[in-house]
Parts: sequence; C-alpha cells; structure tokens
Amino acid sequence: MAQNGSNNVKLLGTWGSPFALRAQVALHLKSVEHEYTEEADVLKSKSDLLVKSNPIHKKVPVLIHGDVSICESLNIVQYVDEAWPSKPSILPSLPQDRAFARFWAHFVDGKCFESIDAVAGAKDDAARMALAGNLMECLTALEEAFQKSSKGGDFFGGENIGFVDIACGGIVGPLSVIEAFSGVKFLSPEATPGLVQWADKFRAHEAVKPYMPNVAEFIEFAKKKFNV
Amino acid sequence: MAQNGSNNVKLLGTWGSPFALRAQVALHLKSVEHEYTEEADVLKSKSDLLVKSNPIHKKVPVLIHGDVSICESLNIVQYVDEAWPSKPSILPSLPQDRAFARFWAHFVDGKCFESIDAVAGAKDDAARMALAGNLMECLTALEEAFQKSSKGGDFFGGENIGFVDIACGGIVGPLSVIEAFSGVKFLSPEATPGLVQWADKFRAHEAVKPYMPNVAEFIEFAKKKFNV
Repeated sequence: MAQNGSNNVKLLGTWGSPFALRAQVALHLKSVEHEYTEEADVLKSKSDLLVKSNPIHKKVPVLIHGDVSICESLNIVQYVDEAWPSKPSILPSLPQDRAFARFWAHFVDGKCFESIDAVAGAKDDAARMALAGNLMECLTALEEAFQKSSKGGDFFGGENIGFVDIACGGIVGPLSVIEAFSGVKFLSPEATPGLVQWADKFRAHEAVKPYMPNVAEFIEFAKKKFNV
Repeated sequence: MAQNGSNNVKLLGTWGSPFALRAQVALHLKSVEHEYTEEADVLKSKSDLLVKSNPIHKKVPVLIHGDVSICESLNIVQYVDEAWPSKPSILPSLPQDRAFARFWAHFVDGKCFESIDAVAGAKDDAARMALAGNLMECLTALEEAFQKSSKGGDFFGGENIGFVDIACGGIVGPLSVIEAFSGVKFLSPEATPGLVQWADKFRAHEAVKPYMPNVAEFIEFAKKKFNV
C-alpha cells in the first residue's frame, strides 16, 4: 500500500487508551507514516511535549503534524481524514450520513463513556447493578444504530470501517474489563447480536489489530492500574 | 440575498436556548428558508415531533430536512454547512483550521458550559466564588484562542463569523445572566478585552440579531424560570 508522506507526523499516545486507539486506527487506514511516542504513565507524569502540545487538556492522544498540534481523538480522526484525503474515506460523503456518523460518535463520547465510567467506579455490587441499566440502554441504542446503518455489512457504515466504528471501537476494551470485573455480560448475542459480531470484526480488522490489546491484556492492565 | 430552496426544512427550537441559537444563526447565514417551531416549555413537556425526531436525547434543537432529522447543535451547524455548500462557509477550508475550530467548539460545549452550569447552580456565594475560578480559566483560554485566530478581525476566524463564533455565541446569554445574579464580571475589558469586543460584534451581526434575546430579556426569563 502506498504510504502517505510523513511530513514530520508524531502521535503521542498511551498503551490501552481507547482514545489513542482511534488516532492509531485512522493513521493506519490512511497509511500515514508517523512516529509514535508512548506517554508511559500519563496519569502520574506528563512529558513536556504533551503539556506543550495540549496545554488545555494535557491528555493523549495528540497528533503533531509539522508545527500544528491536533488534540482530542475524534478531532484527530476527522483531521486525518481531511489532511490526507486519499481513499479510504473515514467520514461518509453525504451530509446526512456525515451527520449520522458525528451524532453517534459523540453519543459514544458522551452518554456511553459516562455510563461505562459510572459502572466501573460503582462503590459496590448493588450500585453497579443499578448503573448497569444506563449502560445497557446506551448499548441498545447503539445496536439499533448499527442495525439501521450497516445494511447487512460488517460495520456501521456498511462494508467498510468508518468514523462510527473508530469512535465505538474505544468502548470494546473498557467493556471487556467491566464485564470481567462485574460478571455482567453487556454485549450478548441475545441483547446486542449486531454489536457482538461487529466487535469481533472490528478487533480483527487489519487497521485495528496491531493497536488493540486482547481481552486478557486489558484485564491484567486494569488489575494493576486499580490495584485489584 | 438568494434564498436556498427549503425542500421542507423545519427547525425545532425554544426561546432563549443557546443551542437553538446556533442552528438559527447557521440557517440564516446560508439563507435556508425554513419553518421554525417553538417548543414552548421543553423542560415540562415535549412535542410528539420532538420525541420522534430526537428519540435519544429528546432535546432541541432538531433540524428536520425532508425525512432526515439532525440532532445536537454543533452537528446541525456542520450539517447546514455541508448540505448547503454555497458561500459563506461556516467551517474554514484548511484541515488545521477546521481542527482548531472543532477543538474550541467542543471546548465550549464541554469545559465552558460545565463551568457556567456549576456557577449557576452554586448553593451559596462562597461556593459560587470558588467555582467562578474555573469559569475564568475557561474564558482566559478562549481569550487566547480569540487573540490567536482573529488576527485583528472581529471574529474567531478573522473577518467573518464562523464555527467557533457560533459555538461560543451560545455562552453570551448565559454569561450575562450569571453576571447579573452573582455580581461578578466574567467578561471584562481588563481580563478578556478580545471577548468583550467579540461579544458585541457577535450580538450585532445580522445573522444573530433576530434570534438573540437582549440581556434584560435573558435576565427576566431566568428570574421566571428559576423563581428568583
């Protein structure tokens, strides 16, 4: 596959970050040569480069392209799509499809991640089960969006991986961790048949596989991180 | 000015909504003929059309274009820019400028509105003053973004009103309300000279003026709404 010229492209990320994953997948899809810098423990210390290039949020991922820094994962994915306009396109071409994609991507970043964080941070099993309902509602809505937009294909837009897949892909790892810790199956063939198949296809996609930790690695990582 | 054909365009909004304002300004800028429907008291009751067209969030604004519903204000503004690609453009053309615009628009929707809500909802003066610091930090960051991007022009992108202005315009009304209630001046010629001038230019813009309540109307509305 032809490589897009690097023009000095750097990505600051951290292992296991669902947001850094999005940027990695987008860069891979567009075959953008880049240098990846691991911000090893971004919660404890931040590199000077990270603070300088994302002074507002001081978070990964940051894409540095020449003298321009692009922050926030969905913003990076859209930038990559626009700055390297060669195929494949990440956003669809029709305005209504682009609006659909942005809506669901922001739904994932808003309600969906909030529900995941709430379940992950619940103080006991009773609280977790109460909060699990909100997360299931989110996943049911995503399942409907998948059924509506995939039209029998493997991904949200149909046959090809795109913006909603990349946005949603961020929840696959965190979901597997909270499933393991809570014993609740959030993605199941009964409740979310489309999403179960989608998650398998997403994990196995050639633009995702090199960057996506497997479930066991995620759980091991979470155990260490949260001292469980 | 030439009118863009309506093709059955409806906007569901509510008076005083900073988010509906964004959609109204975008439609005006693109001269899109449309029918506006006031959702009179969206906190107490929601029309069937609103619930049907925005089943996930059940909130205004919603833009209905033919048989497509577009929800969430920044999404609507981008949709309007893409579905009616005639000039003026709302998003800039260069990828790095588009990324800059999206970053600050989402900063307003995230940190900025969170800080405004926190100050507005503070239980007493001491709590309000403590929270005011976060809001001032947001406005200082916005001031820097304005200075950096306006290049001597009246708006965030320079001479012409654009995406960041429309996003930021949503905070002008709420800020004037919390200034009136708290006695704290958040926008001032000393701390945020660029934003003070920008807010005046924004309010006076021909695409904003018909939809932007004045400060006294906003305060009166807030007094009734919150029973003050």
